Amino acid sequence: MAIQITGTGSYIPDLIEKNEDFHEHNFLNADGSTINYPNEIIVEKFKDITGIVERRYAENHLTSSDLGALAAEKAINNANIDPEELDYIIVAHNFGDVKHDTIQSDILPCLASRIKHSLRIKNPKCVAYDILFGCPGWVEGVIQAQAYIKAGMAKKCLVIGTETLSRVVDKHDRDSMIYSDGAGASVIEASDDENTGILAHETASFTYDEAYYLFFGKSNNQELCKDTRYIKMHGRKIYEFALNNVPQAMKSCLDKSGVDISEVKKVLIHQANEKMDEAIIKRFYRLYKASVPDGIMPMSIHKLGNSSVATVPTLFDLVKNNKLENHNLSKGDVIIFASVGAGMHINAVVYRY
Amino acid sequence: MAIQITGTGSYIPDLIEKNEDFHEHNFLNADGSTINYPNEIIVEKFKDITGIVERRYAENHLTSSDLGALAAEKAINNANIDPEELDYIIVAHNFGDVKHDTIQSDILPCLASRIKHSLRIKNPKCVAYDILFGCPGWVEGVIQAQAYIKAGMAKKCLVIGTETLSRVVDKHDRDSMIYSDGAGASVIEASDDENTGILAHETASFTYDEAYYLFFGKSNNQELCKDTRYIKMHGRKIYEFALNNVPQAMKSCLDKSGVDISEVKKVLIHQANEKMDEAIIKRFYRLYKASVPDGIMPMSIHKLGNSSVATVPTLFDLVKNNKLENHNLSKGDVIIFASVGAGMHINAVVYRY
Repeated sequence: MAIQITGTGSYIPDLIEKNEDFHEHNFLNADGSTINYPNEIIVEKFKDITGIVERRYAENHLTSSDLGALAAEKAINNANIDPEELDYIIVAHNFGDVKHDTIQSDILPCLASRIKHSLRIKNPKCVAYDILFGCPGWVEGVIQAQAYIKAGMAKKCLVIGTETLSRVVDKHDRDSMIYSDGAGASVIEASDDENTGILAHETASFTYDEAYYLFFGKSNNQELCKDTRYIKMHGRKIYEFALNNVPQAMKSCLDKSGVDISEVKKVLIHQANEKMDEAIIKRFYRLYKASVPDGIMPMSIHKLGNSSVATVPTLFDLVKNNKLENHNLSKGDVIIFASVGAGMHINAVVYRY
Repeated sequence: MAIQITGTGSYIPDLIEKNEDFHEHNFLNADGSTINYPNEIIVEKFKDITGIVERRYAENHLTSSDLGALAAEKAINNANIDPEELDYIIVAHNFGDVKHDTIQSDILPCLASRIKHSLRIKNPKCVAYDILFGCPGWVEGVIQAQAYIKAGMAKKCLVIGTETLSRVVDKHDRDSMIYSDGAGASVIEASDDENTGILAHETASFTYDEAYYLFFGKSNNQELCKDTRYIKMHGRKIYEFALNNVPQAMKSCLDKSGVDISEVKKVLIHQANEKMDEAIIKRFYRLYKASVPDGIMPMSIHKLGNSSVATVPTLFDLVKNNKLENHNLSKGDVIIFASVGAGMHINAVVYRY
């Protein structure tokens, strides 16, 4: 039995927030002190490292579950299935629904219930739950769907990654420029075509020293309410951690699949930071004593930023539909999905298209 | 292959909040209007329906993940396993970590990462994630652990349910008296003893009309900040929903297991409301044209209230350890675990002890 992604969809919000839009921000260091150079330089340095030129923000009236439902509708249509046949709806996110201009995460009910409600699915046997697993949540949802199918508990699953990071950023923190909103979704099905689908997976949770590399913390502006918290990260530590651990996890996964490195056509990696992703892919190929092939790693970060759980399914949807210049997929191509994020969690899936 | 619960643990907070402690509260109707009878009567009526006499609140310095870690330690010791051998840590909750006297849910990183960090587990192959699935989250975590074991992806899993509902209640809402804090945990392992363990499971998500029966809403006190939201429920709708659907889900599960109704020794049901639980068990036996056997349904709600995901694992831990008067378990006894809650989700597991 094979386990395939039979449909994809994504929702890319309309509102474009350009780097120039941050020129008037009052950026501060973590200790509240002033940064001694102008915002134009801060923004330029930021662009050089992350590759981000602009990012997307959801419209004020939409929440994360709304974005997820919009992406899910497209994935269901693309898979051409009756949504009433779904056995599972798995929704990955990290902050729940945060209404515009409020500070509370709303996760009651879980977003999967909200999305199933929005999709007007009646079948109560379709189990709808959320997973929290940092940015690798969507990839992990695919791995969980695989488990249910292998265990004979499901045939068709919908896996969604959705996030509105714009609602949880500290405007006084330079890192706020990284974050973006979006949603991606996929339908996962059991299939008899043994030659395609998921070939291997790998997951790891590093929590001993790393649990709080990404965390919920107070604003850099010490005059703001100390109880109000925002997404925060220890960027340098994350960068080193990712470089030391992601390439090895991808290699373990590829080796398990039995596929030769030369057969890999695309690596769809979480869009966290362009320089970091480039360093990861370099180290990955170095583990095979190979150089990085041209065009192996499609990037959407320049225009879409880092939308957490949404980056990998959105990237897959874009490449599959020839919406990313110079990238395409043919039947039989081997892809690696890989992600890293808050937790710190890492995962990878080797997939034959 | 059998799938067994090889260890249990629970954490029951020390602070006791008695019904009398609500006598000075300013309870209001949902529309903000005054309730036309004294608190003594409100509290007495509440006790008659729910059975709750007192409930537990976590100490101010503890969060939900702290409670979960304390319960998990006990379950690991009880199972007598090396925690480094765990393949999964699955944590069910519904509000994340909410610090005392704040209003934000902190779910970055996920609680499973925090708990794994607290347990000082090093093994990165131990995957730590959270599920959001309403009150049935712990039972669902057990069902997910079963899937990983069946699929060959795990041998040992730790499933935790933890919640601090006292941090999200609206003090002006009578329903706030229901909610309690606590945590329960279990170790789930593959075993060769075919005659014991999980015999069947059943899960359903009713979202078409029911998704928002439990929700995050504003205070009954209309003078408070409209943006601050609390746990809220449509109690009557939930009561009717549960009565119409939980007994049938339990029956589907028992019928799948092949066990005769006369063989069931205990039904461990989510401690939501005593009257509701009694009505559910009555209807369940009526589906088999049988009457409810004496002592079939252990109850902890009188002293512990409704601690959401924590009630079922805590109840199991208490009964297993002869800590609930007139209740005990012998090897070979058949138990049904059943739960219902926000989503609206329902699940059941038939288990041979």
